[in-house]
Amino acid sequence: MEVKANGPNDESGRIPDGPTKGRIPDGPTNPMVTPLLTDLYQFTMAYAYWKAGKHQERAVFDLYFRKNPFGGEYTVFAGLEECIRFIANFKFTEDEISFIRETLPGSCEDGFCDYLRGLDCSEVELYAVPEGSVVFPKVPLLRIEGPIAVVQLLETPLLNLVNYASLVATNAARHRFVAGKTKMLLEFGLRRAQGPDGGIGASKYCYIGGFDATSNVAAGRFFGIPLRGTHSHAFVSSYMSLDEIVEKSLQSSDGSSSCEDFVSLVQTWLDKIKWSNSLRGVFVETNQSELAAFTSYALAFPNNLLALVDTYDVIRSGIPNFCAVALALSDLGYKAVGIRLDSGDLAYLSCEARKFFCAIEKEFGVPGFGKTSITASNDLNEETLDALNKQGHEVDAFGIGTYLVTCFTQAALGCVFKLVEINNQPRIKLSEDVSKVSIPCKKGCFRLYGKEGYPLVDIMTGENEPSPKVGERILCRHPFNESKRAYVVPQKVEELLKCYWPGISGKAREDLPPLKEIRERCIKQLEQMRPDHMRRLNPTPYKVSVSAKLYDFIHFLWLNEAPVGELQ
Amino acid sequence: MEVKANGPNDESGRIPDGPTKGRIPDGPTNPMVTPLLTDLYQFTMAYAYWKAGKHQERAVFDLYFRKNPFGGEYTVFAGLEECIRFIANFKFTEDEISFIRETLPGSCEDGFCDYLRGLDCSEVELYAVPEGSVVFPKVPLLRIEGPIAVVQLLETPLLNLVNYASLVATNAARHRFVAGKTKMLLEFGLRRAQGPDGGIGASKYCYIGGFDATSNVAAGRFFGIPLRGTHSHAFVSSYMSLDEIVEKSLQSSDGSSSCEDFVSLVQTWLDKIKWSNSLRGVFVETNQSELAAFTSYALAFPNNLLALVDTYDVIRSGIPNFCAVALALSDLGYKAVGIRLDSGDLAYLSCEARKFFCAIEKEFGVPGFGKTSITASNDLNEETLDALNKQGHEVDAFGIGTYLVTCFTQAALGCVFKLVEINNQPRIKLSEDVSKVSIPCKKGCFRLYGKEGYPLVDIMTGENEPSPKVGERILCRHPFNESKRAYVVPQKVEELLKCYWPGISGKAREDLPPLKEIRERCIKQLEQMRPDHMRRLNPTPYKVSVSAKLYDFIHFLWLNEAPVGELQ
Repeated sequence: MEVKANGPNDESGRIPDGPTKGRIPDGPTNPMVTPLLTDLYQFTMAYAYWKAGKHQERAVFDLYFRKNPFGGEYTVFAGLEECIRFIANFKFTEDEISFIRETLPGSCEDGFCDYLRGLDCSEVELYAVPEGSVVFPKVPLLRIEGPIAVVQLLETPLLNLVNYASLVATNAARHRFVAGKTKMLLEFGLRRAQGPDGGIGASKYCYIGGFDATSNVAAGRFFGIPLRGTHSHAFVSSYMSLDEIVEKSLQSSDGSSSCEDFVSLVQTWLDKIKWSNSLRGVFVETNQSELAAFTSYALAFPNNLLALVDTYDVIRSGIPNFCAVALALSDLGYKAVGIRLDSGDLAYLSCEARKFFCAIEKEFGVPGFGKTSITASNDLNEETLDALNKQGHEVDAFGIGTYLVTCFTQAALGCVFKLVEINNQPRIKLSEDVSKVSIPCKKGCFRLYGKEGYPLVDIMTGENEPSPKVGERILCRHPFNESKRAYVVPQKVEELLKCYWPGISGKAREDLPPLKEIRERCIKQLEQMRPDHMRRLNPTPYKVSVSAKLYDFIHFLWLNEAPVGELQ
Repeated sequence: MEVKANGPNDESGRIPDGPTKGRIPDGPTNPMVTPLLTDLYQFTMAYAYWKAGKHQERAVFDLYFRKNPFGGEYTVFAGLEECIRFIANFKFTEDEISFIRETLPGSCEDGFCDYLRGLDCSEVELYAVPEGSVVFPKVPLLRIEGPIAVVQLLETPLLNLVNYASLVATNAARHRFVAGKTKMLLEFGLRRAQGPDGGIGASKYCYIGGFDATSNVAAGRFFGIPLRGTHSHAFVSSYMSLDEIVEKSLQSSDGSSSCEDFVSLVQTWLDKIKWSNSLRGVFVETNQSELAAFTSYALAFPNNLLALVDTYDVIRSGIPNFCAVALALSDLGYKAVGIRLDSGDLAYLSCEARKFFCAIEKEFGVPGFGKTSITASNDLNEETLDALNKQGHEVDAFGIGTYLVTCFTQAALGCVFKLVEINNQPRIKLSEDVSKVSIPCKKGCFRLYGKEGYPLVDIMTGENEPSPKVGERILCRHPFNESKRAYVVPQKVEELLKCYWPGISGKAREDLPPLKEIRERCIKQLEQMRPDHMRRLNPTPYKVSVSAKLYDFIHFLWLNEAPVGELQ
């Protein structure tokens, strides 16, 4: 079996631009995303539909979630491009058809294999909220229409491609919200992610949610995401002493001169710092293996020294060693980037580091040294970022891994895929739990904006109802609570669902924007929300509603389908 | 860029047998697992090592975790085969090398690209605990030796491949423990998994941890895992009435006769049940779209009817409808499999269903009908399984998804990768948090068994110390707590680390066993543990120790490296 990885479109590994109208998009980034990446019951159902001659009946399914994650009141929708790449290339190979034939229980008729052989998504239409949008419970993220058998086969892969993507993008957005706009946020989660493309997906969708860069080289190549990273503790402890450094010369930044013994220059600076007026007594002997590691790294990357300073002792070894190397680099016209703290009290240590840097700037007259960058990276999450803010800190960049990429506080988003119409007949899924009752009908979905420019409410309407109009009063009803309703006069009306896969309907296809545009959309949408929906503690729920007509219809259908109880 | 998916070894999609001695294993199952699937800092470090002429220095790294997950006292090790597939095929393409050259900060020398071009894992040796073993904190799961630059490049992918694999296998084992040996456990998590191969990985490693089957067709094909699944709520609600069923005939199981109107046969049975002595009054009118769906499914799969009975009302509609169809099938010599419950009070509903089935068996004289299988599948996890056990239930099979595959209660295992020796010099990583101090030296690792056949303690020794011997008393010391120590006279000694990748050392290579053997090993190892280590509440920690000699050496090195404080 040979499959193609379709991540980068060209040799350079640059971000794919997405298909233009009419062009078939490339296949999924992960070549394991095939039509077999689905639950067996989709095939048994497809067979049963086919056997009953029902497989071509036109069905409409909504993909939506019921509850915002992480105790918040918003969600970022992501994963759409991979969904479109999947359905655009949906086609069974002969090997796959043989496998299904062997796997289906009982005797599978040849005709079904022929049916699978001819199957693609040309008769499917997919409508979606644009990727990177802020979205809310119950409102469809995707509406998929088509022959029931093929749309069922799509259920599991679409859920898989949207669930984690949206969850981790939302998590990233929440981390960005707490960290604030000015901080650099780095995604460092690959090693702890749930499998290889858990890592690659995390890098992509955290970037959409507002992160600035990733450590994951494969994601950098697939998606053009900026890459960051310098060295680990192992690098530091792999050195024993400065004697190990054989090649000691370093050319100046402008190439005009050369320092023959950079190691001695570093040692001279370390001595100057040690006996300086303002820093005298802060440290005695720094760790020499650490000093050797920083010096060696600086010789390899004189313009990019970002030193991990906590292998032995941050204040008494790591920071002085870094400063000695940074000042030696400065003599040669290079500017060190900064330090990384990976343990201990990050608020305290970052403030001490800042003081140290400012003292150096003053004492040795090195302009800008006080602003040397401080990165922190030890098991960070929303709570620890919030605590750091409250304590006060001097961190410029945060490297966040485990909690971000595995969505530790809530590891799954519960998107579901529900039949809402078949053969133009609306369908409802009942449940004793009202929050699990589905909203029937092929629906239009709109976001209504108020006078202050904030989104006020999302409203779902029956497909044939007139759309809400700017300046026209409309009644918005809670779908299940009859007493909750409000009139709205929208200042702006946004239709949420756009056509990303028209099939053979002849409709225009929305472009899939490049990753950077998706990220910008996300950032802009988050900024546009009313602040009380966004706060971490007790956020106000955003309102999701249905039209009066749809409300009446839901409840008519519900009464119609639910059995009448008999108390005994 | 073209990459090959190497999951199935042959057309049939059967489980790969693993390489035999001397053969190069196939590449990783997920073709996205390439040498670029690593953190950028591995490349910057490799460059700095290369630039310092240090890249060939021989280093030893341990991969281990510090704490068992899920509040338990054991972990199942998994992911080894994928690690070996990865290192066996570790090789850069020209595209990848160009990407690294563009990505490294500053000017990357040509010599480094030449170095990468020639790089593979032939000089690397990898020792590991066999996959499917029960393992404990601090003891290396993998010990990797080789030139420091290449072993650093392996760090992130090896962690990625082991972390989630071991976490989810452990989660599966814990679910199996609560469910008991006799229940069928089905993994249903694909739609909620963290990305496509989060789903595929979950299916593989849950199978290792003791699950019986998966719904994930791709995983079935890649790994030969048994597949299960029948139909969803959408299938039920896609039908409106029995009139939709056009092709109503069904041949008997033995082919001797044919029923021309299976629909009428079903209706007749529903009437008989309704007015039977023991079931009279249980239900009035069942839902006809549900009855049509079950009937249609039975016509497609007469030997495999497993009906989802909770779309409308379990007791008053789903179960009677299923029984009517099952009895009609029985008339034709077929045996229905059973029902699935996906909502409501599973303990109560399963008991009611069992009563109903037993009443049918008695009333209509259908032998075995009382034993009709009951599957349950609504947001199940360890806690709900435990609660069901306490309440009493009649469930035969559990379908478990979200909580299992995303490891909801703890979404990450914190495996780390620490340098323990370079150029034959032991290295230690210090930390103010004692649990984070690494155990230095290239070590031997042994499991010592007691008289009753249970494992008693794991012990790590310096590489050149004699191995523990059966019948010989040995002192086992806690690595960091001087007062915790015990003499042990082992009845059996098992060397834990085996050579799975000898590189060019000429050592014999352990076979990678087929998946089923890994699963059997896991089940056997779990059964072999002393019960108090395994219980859900307050389990006894299993002891992990070091030899007296290694203990002394750790503490000598620690004092040597740690700076002496100065109180001011």
